[in-house]
Amino acid sequence: MAVIVQKYGGTSVGTAERIGAVADRIAATVQDGTRCVIVVSAMGHSTDRLVNLANEIAPVRSQREMDVLLATGEQVSIALVAMALLARGVHAQSLTGWQAGINTEAVHGAARIESIDQRRIEQLLDNGIIPVIAGFQGIHGTDVTTLGRGGSDTTAVAVAASIHAQSCEIYTDVDGVYTADPRIVAKASKLSAISYEEMLELATLGSQVLHPRAVETAKQHGVQLVVRSSFSEAEGTVIKEMGSMEGMRMVTGVAVEKEVARIAVLGIQISKHHLSAMFQALAQEQVNVDVIVQSVVKTGEVDVSFTVAEADATHAIRMCESLQSVLGYREILQELGLSKVSIVGAGMITNPGVAAQMFAAIEAAGAEIKMVSTSEIKVSCVIPSRFLSEVVNQVHQTFALDALE
Amino acid sequence: MAVIVQKYGGTSVGTAERIGAVADRIAATVQDGTRCVIVVSAMGHSTDRLVNLANEIAPVRSQREMDVLLATGEQVSIALVAMALLARGVHAQSLTGWQAGINTEAVHGAARIESIDQRRIEQLLDNGIIPVIAGFQGIHGTDVTTLGRGGSDTTAVAVAASIHAQSCEIYTDVDGVYTADPRIVAKASKLSAISYEEMLELATLGSQVLHPRAVETAKQHGVQLVVRSSFSEAEGTVIKEMGSMEGMRMVTGVAVEKEVARIAVLGIQISKHHLSAMFQALAQEQVNVDVIVQSVVKTGEVDVSFTVAEADATHAIRMCESLQSVLGYREILQELGLSKVSIVGAGMITNPGVAAQMFAAIEAAGAEIKMVSTSEIKVSCVIPSRFLSEVVNQVHQTFALDALE
Repeated sequence: MAVIVQKYGGTSVGTAERIGAVADRIAATVQDGTRCVIVVSAMGHSTDRLVNLANEIAPVRSQREMDVLLATGEQVSIALVAMALLARGVHAQSLTGWQAGINTEAVHGAARIESIDQRRIEQLLDNGIIPVIAGFQGIHGTDVTTLGRGGSDTTAVAVAASIHAQSCEIYTDVDGVYTADPRIVAKASKLSAISYEEMLELATLGSQVLHPRAVETAKQHGVQLVVRSSFSEAEGTVIKEMGSMEGMRMVTGVAVEKEVARIAVLGIQISKHHLSAMFQALAQEQVNVDVIVQSVVKTGEVDVSFTVAEADATHAIRMCESLQSVLGYREILQELGLSKVSIVGAGMITNPGVAAQMFAAIEAAGAEIKMVSTSEIKVSCVIPSRFLSEVVNQVHQTFALDALE
Repeated sequence: MAVIVQKYGGTSVGTAERIGAVADRIAATVQDGTRCVIVVSAMGHSTDRLVNLANEIAPVRSQREMDVLLATGEQVSIALVAMALLARGVHAQSLTGWQAGINTEAVHGAARIESIDQRRIEQLLDNGIIPVIAGFQGIHGTDVTTLGRGGSDTTAVAVAASIHAQSCEIYTDVDGVYTADPRIVAKASKLSAISYEEMLELATLGSQVLHPRAVETAKQHGVQLVVRSSFSEAEGTVIKEMGSMEGMRMVTGVAVEKEVARIAVLGIQISKHHLSAMFQALAQEQVNVDVIVQSVVKTGEVDVSFTVAEADATHAIRMCESLQSVLGYREILQELGLSKVSIVGAGMITNPGVAAQMFAAIEAAGAEIKMVSTSEIKVSCVIPSRFLSEVVNQVHQTFALDALE
């Protein structure tokens, strides 16, 4: 009999009432004999509460002790979900990260899973007991570790891979992956299926349904993912390998990232390492740089433009200024109030002219294109935010995304 | 170099600020090279919060999952205390029950410690690192267990025994053991030392400074206990073996238990098992019976009186009524508004007439003695609560307890 892994996020287990609803759903799933493994996150804002406590106590924090602290969040959830299942007459048993055999590398705060000793999970399944596993946490030696951002999704996928589960269902507060943000595009349609690659591009582009790390792990191990809402019975979106047999869609969706700043460093003296010097310095300061464009203006000089989140703009400019002696630039400009609009589609590779169609759509919406960046399955354009709604709707219409499913 | 175990209770680690104060105290203790092991309870009311969550989710609770849930309380504390120490430049590392090697029997909710694998604790100490251990919890196999009431005190004593610590300091919100409750007896004096046996009698009699279980474990392993306040620098009370060399005090303290109900079952037909039938039934219903007095009234008939907490009185009476066919009693009476006053002293054994002195003191205070119960080092009298203050002060004065130290 097939096994399904179900992962419930912090919102899904945010209150006693919601935990009850989750237990009802699991009880319904196993009624026909389907075997389930459950992975849960910490309740709603409990992690924030713990982080605040730690901040009050120690300004500089020990990562080892932070992991011990934060791991309690999921431990509370697994106990409560297991209790809710037992109260419904469903056999269940909670497992912390170390009890579930989730072995990670020796890193605190952002450990990667190295292996899963799945024997205890399988033993429970063989005895008709549902394992309720704490996401986000593992063990190295006898030390508690946590997996960092996207950790619970990754736990679910890794567990699914280790027991060769039929699929891994990620329950969240949206009912699937859409061709665009329904708050911007009224006609946005829910996709029934999408490839790992497309999902990765959409995930990194800000459709924050699923963490890229989890998608990567799923792709690597061929785990079929399903994104579903824990608040409805809607079908959700399947993320899987999609061969050409299925006819790859040219464009699958439009993603948006708001509050983008463009920083232009003009008249940089060309050297062997002017780019690496600049972006290594920014990386060391944890400034996340997105689109990068370099253009040669005249011999021996270049202009470099890049985008960062608006919140990071001032910090990024100060970093560049501190490199004046290395870069020998003439001036730095910044532009705020921008957004990045991207189209993603695995079929793009074999369809020339997709980028041109997108540019035309943006121009038709009356917006100036500030920057362009492309990959094999993605085209991104930076535009003024005040045109965002018109642009996204125009692009959505151009590629007939409302007809997708 | 000697090792000291320090245990901090829920009030002592109730807020971020108090955790800071605890860390300051530990930092001061280790400054001269003293080696310390710390045991902590869950923060203030965090356990209540978790129990309430569980109540919301499942009316009938799984004890296994309750243990997984409750163990998070101490895990939060150890991480925060370790962080606070590290922030003060003191090397420290948190250990959960399972990491500290606290092995318990296979019972959930009230497990006893079977053994401690103290190697990791010793290894940390050898490396100049303070182990910060979660009280109240342990492990059986790979399952998390909790120790029930008095658990953290017991953890501290058991750890102290396992590493042959010089002493085990229990930090709480009172600064020691007094000859009487200072709220009742203004002249109550703090004892500098007391024997295990006396402390056991005082503990079970309601001087809720230290759980009897911890005192028993300390006595068994010869661990010297110190009760101290975490809010002051006062010396505290030492609990240890006190031989006759030290001159055993006749009376060490007066203990009080309020809100006591007396239930009298009159005219019970004597049988081989009328007492066991009655009190087994009450025990099964979790009614805690204290003083029991049986008196033969006439041939073939007895009256049995016993005390319970006032809150349990109605329930206890109903239980007795349900046994009418077995007991064949004539009638049941109850008396509320009573208190139990007890004197405790290891020297009582060799001093005849102590009980008589106590009775005289109570009569001098104008109170009627409702029931009497004695052991080798204790005399208890049940009296009307309205005389409580006069009685306790009179008894305290009779035995010159204000002169003790």
